[in-house]
Amino acid sequence: MSPVALDALDAADAERDRLARVALGSLFEPGDPRLDSLLAGMSAVELYGELQRAEPCSAGSSPAGSPRAGGVRGDVAARLGEVRPDRILEDADRQGIRFVVPSDPEWPTQVDDLAGLEPVQERGGVPLGLWVRGPLRLDRLARSVASVGSRSATTYGLECAGQIAAGVAAEGFVVVSGGAIGIDAASHRGALAGRGATVAVLACGLDRLYPAQNTRLLLSVLDQGALVSELAPGLPVTRMRFLGRNRLIAALTRGTVLVQAAPRSGALNTANWAHRLNRLLMCVPGPISEITSLGVLEQVRQGRGVIVTRGAEVLELIARPGEHLVTERRGPAKPRDRLSARHRQVLDAVPVGRAASPASIARVAGVAIQDVATALLYLERHHLVERTAEGWRLTPGTELS
Amino acid sequence: MSPVALDALDAADAERDRLARVALGSLFEPGDPRLDSLLAGMSAVELYGELQRAEPCSAGSSPAGSPRAGGVRGDVAARLGEVRPDRILEDADRQGIRFVVPSDPEWPTQVDDLAGLEPVQERGGVPLGLWVRGPLRLDRLARSVASVGSRSATTYGLECAGQIAAGVAAEGFVVVSGGAIGIDAASHRGALAGRGATVAVLACGLDRLYPAQNTRLLLSVLDQGALVSELAPGLPVTRMRFLGRNRLIAALTRGTVLVQAAPRSGALNTANWAHRLNRLLMCVPGPISEITSLGVLEQVRQGRGVIVTRGAEVLELIARPGEHLVTERRGPAKPRDRLSARHRQVLDAVPVGRAASPASIARVAGVAIQDVATALLYLERHHLVERTAEGWRLTPGTELS
Repeated sequence: MSPVALDALDAADAERDRLARVALGSLFEPGDPRLDSLLAGMSAVELYGELQRAEPCSAGSSPAGSPRAGGVRGDVAARLGEVRPDRILEDADRQGIRFVVPSDPEWPTQVDDLAGLEPVQERGGVPLGLWVRGPLRLDRLARSVASVGSRSATTYGLECAGQIAAGVAAEGFVVVSGGAIGIDAASHRGALAGRGATVAVLACGLDRLYPAQNTRLLLSVLDQGALVSELAPGLPVTRMRFLGRNRLIAALTRGTVLVQAAPRSGALNTANWAHRLNRLLMCVPGPISEITSLGVLEQVRQGRGVIVTRGAEVLELIARPGEHLVTERRGPAKPRDRLSARHRQVLDAVPVGRAASPASIARVAGVAIQDVATALLYLERHHLVERTAEGWRLTPGTELS
Repeated sequence: MSPVALDALDAADAERDRLARVALGSLFEPGDPRLDSLLAGMSAVELYGELQRAEPCSAGSSPAGSPRAGGVRGDVAARLGEVRPDRILEDADRQGIRFVVPSDPEWPTQVDDLAGLEPVQERGGVPLGLWVRGPLRLDRLARSVASVGSRSATTYGLECAGQIAAGVAAEGFVVVSGGAIGIDAASHRGALAGRGATVAVLACGLDRLYPAQNTRLLLSVLDQGALVSELAPGLPVTRMRFLGRNRLIAALTRGTVLVQAAPRSGALNTANWAHRLNRLLMCVPGPISEITSLGVLEQVRQGRGVIVTRGAEVLELIARPGEHLVTERRGPAKPRDRLSARHRQVLDAVPVGRAASPASIARVAGVAIQDVATALLYLERHHLVERTAEGWRLTPGTELS
C-alpha cells in the first residue's frame, strides 16, 4: 500500500476507536471502575464489538452483587440499540465540543497514571476520552497545577487561592479547577487575572455551564482556556460525577493546591487522588479557629501534603528542578546585622532598660575590658548605645531580638 | 565512720559544690559555652579551686582571639577577689530564691541533654545551677511543655496560645514560657486559667520581674508555679541572656509549641534549640497573610516541626504513648452516612438541580433498574429524594458532597 493509503487506514482506525469510545461512554457511566479492567485486556473497538455481538438479555437478569465480574453485559445490552456515537459527535461538534482520545496528539498522557489504581468511592480508571470546549490544547496541561477547595470559602481563602493561582499562571502554568463557587472560582479568576490559562473540569456535559452562578466566569474560562469533562454533552451532574471529576483534576496536573477544606469537604477527595497518584499535594494553611483550615492541616499532619504560602513556593515544587528556586523569607535587615562579631557581642551584653559599667559589660560579653571600651565607642558613633551618668545603655529604640 | 557522719560529709560536699557553682556563675557569664568544656573534665569545686590557685594576672593580658582555649583564667582572675558565693546565697535566700544544683533531688535532669551540643550564637551548655523562686519543684518539669512565640502577637495568636496552654495544663503538664509580653504571657495565663502550673524562665536575676508590664502576671506565676533563671539575683537582662534563656526553655521541656513567629523572631531560637535537643517542635499555623505565621510555617516546611491545632494534639505527642490519643476530627454526620452502600450509590446518581428517570439513574449508578426502583422508594421515605412529573430529583437541601 502507498503511504497515503496507509495514512487513510490509520485515520479510519482512529475514527473507529473514537466512535467506540463515545459509544462505551454512553453504555457505561464514565469513571465506572469496571471499564478500566475491561479495557486492560482489549481495545475499545474490540470491547464495543464484543458487546454488540453478545446476545441481548434483559437488564433485570444482571446479578446485582458483583459489579466487576458478571453483570456488565446485562447492564449495557438493553441500551445498545439506542447508542449512536456518530450522532453524539456531530451534535457535540456543532456546539464547539471535541472529543479527545488517547491516539490524539493533544492527549494528556499523565491521565494514563490512573490505570490500575484502586477505585475510591467506586470511581476510578483512565477516562475513555475527554470532551473539550475551548481553544486550549490538552497537552498544555503537561505544565499545570490544580487549585481546589471549599465552596464555603472565606474571604481569606478566596484571596489565597486567587493570589497563588495568579502567580502560578503568570509563569505559564495552566491552573486547573472544578468551576465550582468558592475556592474553585477564585482559582480560575486568579489565573485569568495573572493573564494565564485556566481549565475547568466539569462534572456534566459541556453543553451546560454548571453551576449557573458561575456562568460568566465559565464563559471566560472557555474563551481563554478550556472546559473539560469525561461526560458527553447532555449529561447532568450527580454526586458520583463530582467524585469522578475530582480524580481527573488530580490526574491532569502536576500537583494540587488545597486552599480551604473542612474535614469532610469534597476537595479532600481530589487531594486524596493527588496523593495516590504521586502528585504533589500543596496545602495552604489557615487559622486553626476556622473549620475550613482543619481538613487542610490534617493532610499536612498526616504527611500527605506539604505547606505552601505563596505562588513562588508552588512553582519551586512543580517546575523543573532549579527552574523556580525560592529565596527563603527573611525579616527586615537590622543595624546589628552589619556589625562585626565582636561589636555585636558587646552590644548584646549591654543591659536592657538600665546602664552598666564597661567592666560589667565585659564580664557579660566575655570580652577583655579594653576591647569593650573600643567597641562601645564604635557602637556610640552608630547610635546603638549611649553614655549616661550611670554608665552605658542601649539607645532607646535599639531592638533587642 | 557512722552513717550519720557520712551523711554529714556528703552534705558538706554538696554545700561546697553549690558554693563553687554560685562562684563560677559570678566569674563566668552563665551560658558561656566555655564553661561546658571546662566542667567536662573536672568538678565545679575543682575548677573553682584551680582558678583560685592560679596566679592573678591583669585581665588586659588575656588573648582576645580564642575564647575557648586561653584567656579563661585571665578573664576571671581579676574578679576572683570580689566573689562571695556564701553572701550571694544568703541574699537570695532572704528573697525566697533557692539555687538548685545537679546533686539536688529536684534537679531537672533533662537539661543535662545540653552537654556537648554545639553552641548557637555563642550560648550553650548545661547550666551551673538554676535559681528558683516559687513553690513548684523543678522535677515536676519532667512533664512539661514550652509555649513560646512573638511579642508582637495578634489576637488570634494570643487565643491559640491561651487555649492550647489551658488544655495542656489542665492535664497536669507544666506550661513553661519566657514571661515576655505577647504569646509568652498568653501561655502563662492560659495555664493558670486551666488551673495548672506554669513556670517562667527569665533572662535576669529573680529579684526582678521582667518585663515590668507583666509584673502582676509574674507574681501569679510565682505564686502557683515558679520563676527560674540561671542568672543570680541582681543581674539584668541582655540580648545574650535572652538567647541563653531560650536554650533552657527548650531543654527543660518535652517539647515546644511555637505559636506565632515572624521570620526573625527570637522564638525561632527556642524552636531551634528544641529541634537540636530532639524535643518535639509543635507549630500552630496561622493565616499566610500574617508575617507572624511565616516563621512558624517555615519550620514545618523544613521538616523541623509538626503541626498542632489544639491542646489534645500536643498531649498526644508529648504524653506517654497511648496516654492521650486524639480522635481525628470529623465533619458533622450527614443523613447519607447512615445509608447502605446500595442506597447511597443510587442517591449519588440522582442528578443535581433536575429530575431523571429511574432508567437514567440506573445507568449512572451502574445498578439494575428494579433495585433502583426499590432504593428510590426507600430514599423518598427518608426525604432524600422526591418524585416530580419529570422523574426523580434530590430533595432541595440534600447536601451534595
